[in-house]
Amino acid sequence: MFSNSFIPDMRFGAGTFADLGAAAANLGHIDRALVVMDSFLAASGLADRLLDDLRAHGIIASLYADFAGEPKLAHLQAAMRAARGAQLVIGVGGGSALDIAKITSCCAASGQDPMYYALAANPLPKKPLKKILVPTTAGTGSETSATNIFSGPEGNKLWIWGAEAKADLVILDPTLTVSLPPHLTAWCGMDAFIHAFEAATNRNTHAGAQLYAYEAMRLVADSLETAVKAPGNLDARGKVMLGSCYAGIAIDNCGTAIAHNISHALAGLAPVHHGLATALAFEATLQWLVAARTSELDAAAKVLGLARVEELPAFVSDLMDRCDIRRTLPKAFDAHSHMDLVAEMQATENRPMRRATARDVSDADVDRFAGMIMSLPRTS
Amino acid sequence: MFSNSFIPDMRFGAGTFADLGAAAANLGHIDRALVVMDSFLAASGLADRLLDDLRAHGIIASLYADFAGEPKLAHLQAAMRAARGAQLVIGVGGGSALDIAKITSCCAASGQDPMYYALAANPLPKKPLKKILVPTTAGTGSETSATNIFSGPEGNKLWIWGAEAKADLVILDPTLTVSLPPHLTAWCGMDAFIHAFEAATNRNTHAGAQLYAYEAMRLVADSLETAVKAPGNLDARGKVMLGSCYAGIAIDNCGTAIAHNISHALAGLAPVHHGLATALAFEATLQWLVAARTSELDAAAKVLGLARVEELPAFVSDLMDRCDIRRTLPKAFDAHSHMDLVAEMQATENRPMRRATARDVSDADVDRFAGMIMSLPRTS
Repeated sequence: MFSNSFIPDMRFGAGTFADLGAAAANLGHIDRALVVMDSFLAASGLADRLLDDLRAHGIIASLYADFAGEPKLAHLQAAMRAARGAQLVIGVGGGSALDIAKITSCCAASGQDPMYYALAANPLPKKPLKKILVPTTAGTGSETSATNIFSGPEGNKLWIWGAEAKADLVILDPTLTVSLPPHLTAWCGMDAFIHAFEAATNRNTHAGAQLYAYEAMRLVADSLETAVKAPGNLDARGKVMLGSCYAGIAIDNCGTAIAHNISHALAGLAPVHHGLATALAFEATLQWLVAARTSELDAAAKVLGLARVEELPAFVSDLMDRCDIRRTLPKAFDAHSHMDLVAEMQATENRPMRRATARDVSDADVDRFAGMIMSLPRTS
Repeated sequence: MFSNSFIPDMRFGAGTFADLGAAAANLGHIDRALVVMDSFLAASGLADRLLDDLRAHGIIASLYADFAGEPKLAHLQAAMRAARGAQLVIGVGGGSALDIAKITSCCAASGQDPMYYALAANPLPKKPLKKILVPTTAGTGSETSATNIFSGPEGNKLWIWGAEAKADLVILDPTLTVSLPPHLTAWCGMDAFIHAFEAATNRNTHAGAQLYAYEAMRLVADSLETAVKAPGNLDARGKVMLGSCYAGIAIDNCGTAIAHNISHALAGLAPVHHGLATALAFEATLQWLVAARTSELDAAAKVLGLARVEELPAFVSDLMDRCDIRRTLPKAFDAHSHMDLVAEMQATENRPMRRATARDVSDADVDRFAGMIMSLPRTS
């Protein structure tokens, strides 16, 4: 049994970014907007193009691009101030830009500080500002999720969650991903693939999410190698982007599992790209996982064209090889022991992903996985 | 490039029908409703249960069940009168009940006769009554489409189309399909399968529709035989029902192709179940179609676990065999020649399906297909 969660309107295709102004005007009663955009994108001329396009459709927009890395409370507060008087927030960029846009649309509507909503302390306002989200990496799926991550005043990781944080419109234009370097294309793409795989096979999975998860797995598995090796191939870029978006819908319904438990735990120790960390954790645990031989694991293997679930680990390792993913952790992990990772994997906030895993994760399993991950070579 | 069409909220699972009253109350500002329900369902006690459930949630509902077969203008006008004062229309039944509910929600809001909107003569009202749709056969996909069919004053086939005719909520409860006889289960299921296949492979197809089409093909192909042979198997019933709904979303985006050209043409000659007619036409044309060897046909074969597109015709014939579908036309077709079918296949209203087909359909092809279909044995 399932109720599908709200799916935003979506436009997909090369060149659709150029229609954003018209789409914004079409939302009705908009004359002021805030654009939240990654600063390197804004500097590339993309912000000027967008602001001109909006102006041509009767919308005066201001720009907020003064952030880097994961969103901090101060970024959110600055974006809120910049959104004063706006009826629309447009997020353009990676997961951080989109999360800032989503949170701002809620906080600017109510005037409440983000901390008022953090960790579900209070329900989000029923009438947030409208929002249009334009991802420029293909991986996080933040454009379709209700979840938003930021760092609190003490640097602690917080989240804001609710259907009110979801987009009114998502624009998926693969031309915006062409400049993403090959290694980031590969890492983000694997993150999307694993979102889909975990949502399709974990204990919370259901048919409504599998619809998106299966198509995401197929799209990413078929096209990621081409997107990595031929960065200008818009067909492959588009398929990975669409797959990433669908994978976001899948995890918005069903969440993730052990690979994300480990990758979040790794992020608690030292800076590491989320997609790389997730891919390393997925590969390290997959052989153990498929031994559970659930019908969902069988179905996922079949979706990928594999006759037997036991072929999955080799399939995934081959995909990572073809995408030139090196199995190394950043040097900063030298400062940590495998027991540090065990402790992070057992932290309260990472428990739901462990519990959702299709196979029971014993403490011995946690210990073994941490050992495997921490024995990976370091990036030279 | 695509824009996804509006996808209604959806609840799926055995027993979800019992939550309809609560879901209706949740739509807000509803105290009067009209229930449009197939008369045999109403007589079974289902209408009483639903009216009680609605009353328990503060909604007084009246029932309209006085129709049979394809909706006629008089049915729509009667339903409109019955809807006076209502803010909500609930359709429960096969495609006819749902189409009546959808049209009524628009006409009752504006007070205009259905003929005012027929064949897109005027745009539908922007604020139709709310509607909840509950399919009890799994085939038409009417619960997710913007299209509605009825017969005009001279018995001619008319349609009303528009996003305003779409549901606010779809409830998919497989327990409601358990009493559907095996041959109807098989025919309706094949209709859904072919909706999905044609939407995924015709010239209008796009990735946004393929998401739904592929999952629909998989769900129906995997479960239809069980649903036919074990009518009480709620898991199989549910999968066919979900597949049918997804197939409806796919054709709502991309339409159909040659099999539906032929089945609509057959319906123009004599009464025949739409699902049976479509299945017969699909089987008769598939070998010819797959010779086009487009990438979309290859992809569809792969979704079904087939290594080569040439294996598709045998796969489909085997599926029809396993579902005990007899390849016969009703006796009434004895009154018609194969040239009568040719003429119907070439009629204006059936042309878009011919043109959308992945392979060019020559006049010689039309002649040959008509000959194959009309030479089928008659039902004894």
